[in-house]
Amino acid sequence: MTLYAGIDIGGTNVKVGLCDERGRIVARDSIPTEAARGPADCIARTAATIHRLRGRRPLKAAGAGVPGPLDADRRVLVTAPNLPGWSRVRFPLMLSRALGGTAACMENDANCAALGEYAAGAGRNAFCMVLYTLGTGVGGGIIFQGKLWTGANGAAAELGHVTLDPDGPPCGCGNRGCLEAYASATALVRRYASLSGRNDATAHTIFQQARTGDARARHAIDEAARMLGVAMASMLHTLNPDVVVLSGGMAAGHGLLAAVRAEVKRRVFPMYLKGLTIARGTLGDDAGWIGAAMVARSRFKS
Amino acid sequence: MTLYAGIDIGGTNVKVGLCDERGRIVARDSIPTEAARGPADCIARTAATIHRLRGRRPLKAAGAGVPGPLDADRRVLVTAPNLPGWSRVRFPLMLSRALGGTAACMENDANCAALGEYAAGAGRNAFCMVLYTLGTGVGGGIIFQGKLWTGANGAAAELGHVTLDPDGPPCGCGNRGCLEAYASATALVRRYASLSGRNDATAHTIFQQARTGDARARHAIDEAARMLGVAMASMLHTLNPDVVVLSGGMAAGHGLLAAVRAEVKRRVFPMYLKGLTIARGTLGDDAGWIGAAMVARSRFKS
Repeated sequence: MTLYAGIDIGGTNVKVGLCDERGRIVARDSIPTEAARGPADCIARTAATIHRLRGRRPLKAAGAGVPGPLDADRRVLVTAPNLPGWSRVRFPLMLSRALGGTAACMENDANCAALGEYAAGAGRNAFCMVLYTLGTGVGGGIIFQGKLWTGANGAAAELGHVTLDPDGPPCGCGNRGCLEAYASATALVRRYASLSGRNDATAHTIFQQARTGDARARHAIDEAARMLGVAMASMLHTLNPDVVVLSGGMAAGHGLLAAVRAEVKRRVFPMYLKGLTIARGTLGDDAGWIGAAMVARSRFKS
Repeated sequence: MTLYAGIDIGGTNVKVGLCDERGRIVARDSIPTEAARGPADCIARTAATIHRLRGRRPLKAAGAGVPGPLDADRRVLVTAPNLPGWSRVRFPLMLSRALGGTAACMENDANCAALGEYAAGAGRNAFCMVLYTLGTGVGGGIIFQGKLWTGANGAAAELGHVTLDPDGPPCGCGNRGCLEAYASATALVRRYASLSGRNDATAHTIFQQARTGDARARHAIDEAARMLGVAMASMLHTLNPDVVVLSGGMAAGHGLLAAVRAEVKRRVFPMYLKGLTIARGTLGDDAGWIGAAMVARSRFKS
């Protein structure tokens, strides 16, 4: 068995794991990111965790999923909104050195989640898979015939920033009416606050409230689901995938998936529904690091 | 030189041509479609035109661009809104027979236009090219690394039916707020009529009026351009292409391209603009048949 390491760097935790060449989990752990101590410290602790997990087994390569824009060559993490002060980090080089020269690479975290679900989760055997990550923000990943599509500048699949209404609510990106301004956990909390006057809710509690009959919670969720369905319909008309995967905290919310499917059915030509699966991711928090390991596999398999 | 035939079947005319393996024009002609006489009659006259153009030169294969939904295998034209009564036409088989057994194939006409501009026009050497056809309706084509992307069911790149406003004006497809409902010639004429009270305008005369200082004509054009820019921004965030091509009658309209570019610049992250070209097609009416010939080349080149 060839062993690959994957890491998924979040604002709070770094998920670290080992898997085989097909993305099957061999071992995994999670360590605090402690972003304030800087990237070198975090990478040293991550590498130590990888060493502990692998024991004496040889490691083929390592991949990192990171939360921010990368340069087109995937050598530099340009910035990371959730990792203050981490700018222009040469992650693959630092990780490779910390692992004693093991080949290492880096990819956007939503792209990694897509590749993870494709390799070992809800997107297995898809001809074309599109993944939405629904968390604090909204991200995406696109897999064409087994390969990640990153575009001309490595910036493809920013699915949270497609426009649903040119004059819609402002988005953190500076634009208006982006999907992220409707269907992120942040947007759901804001919308529920505006409907209910309550400022203490989280996305999780809003889904709970909806289940216990809170009509305003249900309404806020239905609006988010509707807008995700609208964005998905446009994406289906553009790419015609056979599998769409929803991942991240919002995706697990009760009733969201059914509402999204209903809106999609209202909006697309019937031929796009033929053979189409719209499903939750099955790997949960493991999708990102498994996908990062699969990025390493595809770059360094020879 | 290996010779390929391409045909582009429209509601009024069939463009017929011969080109080499790189899409360079060798000979071309145009014949009336006369749709009412049925597909068999049209194919017979098309095949006779191909025979006349080629003389004694051997023909490798022929491709047809057709205006309507195809089955996923590209063997049957399911329907064609502009060709009344032409339903379930087995075009490749009929064309092959009419050409004495020459290999023949079929593709959606907007996909053909994209492949034509990629092979021999504005999209040459693109890493990823996206084309919009702006005519009576709005269509599209997507080329990834030299290959047409047709999706899981052959239905990809229906770029006229991405949603720009979920509650926007009705579109011919039954949905609301589609790009086609804003940026087609039909939509422009309708919008200008609503602003000016004049029902005798065409897209062509509206562009002329705008040049001579008609503020309402200019306003209608700017609105269409703005919405095309909004759709393009979402597409750029999704696919991150390096070349975007506008083709069809609307694309030639004075001021449209500049207004589209301005809206795109307002809406996308700067990295999407790096190395990006947004240009008019250079092949005009030849894009479709050249692209159809290139489809034939890619399917039957061995």
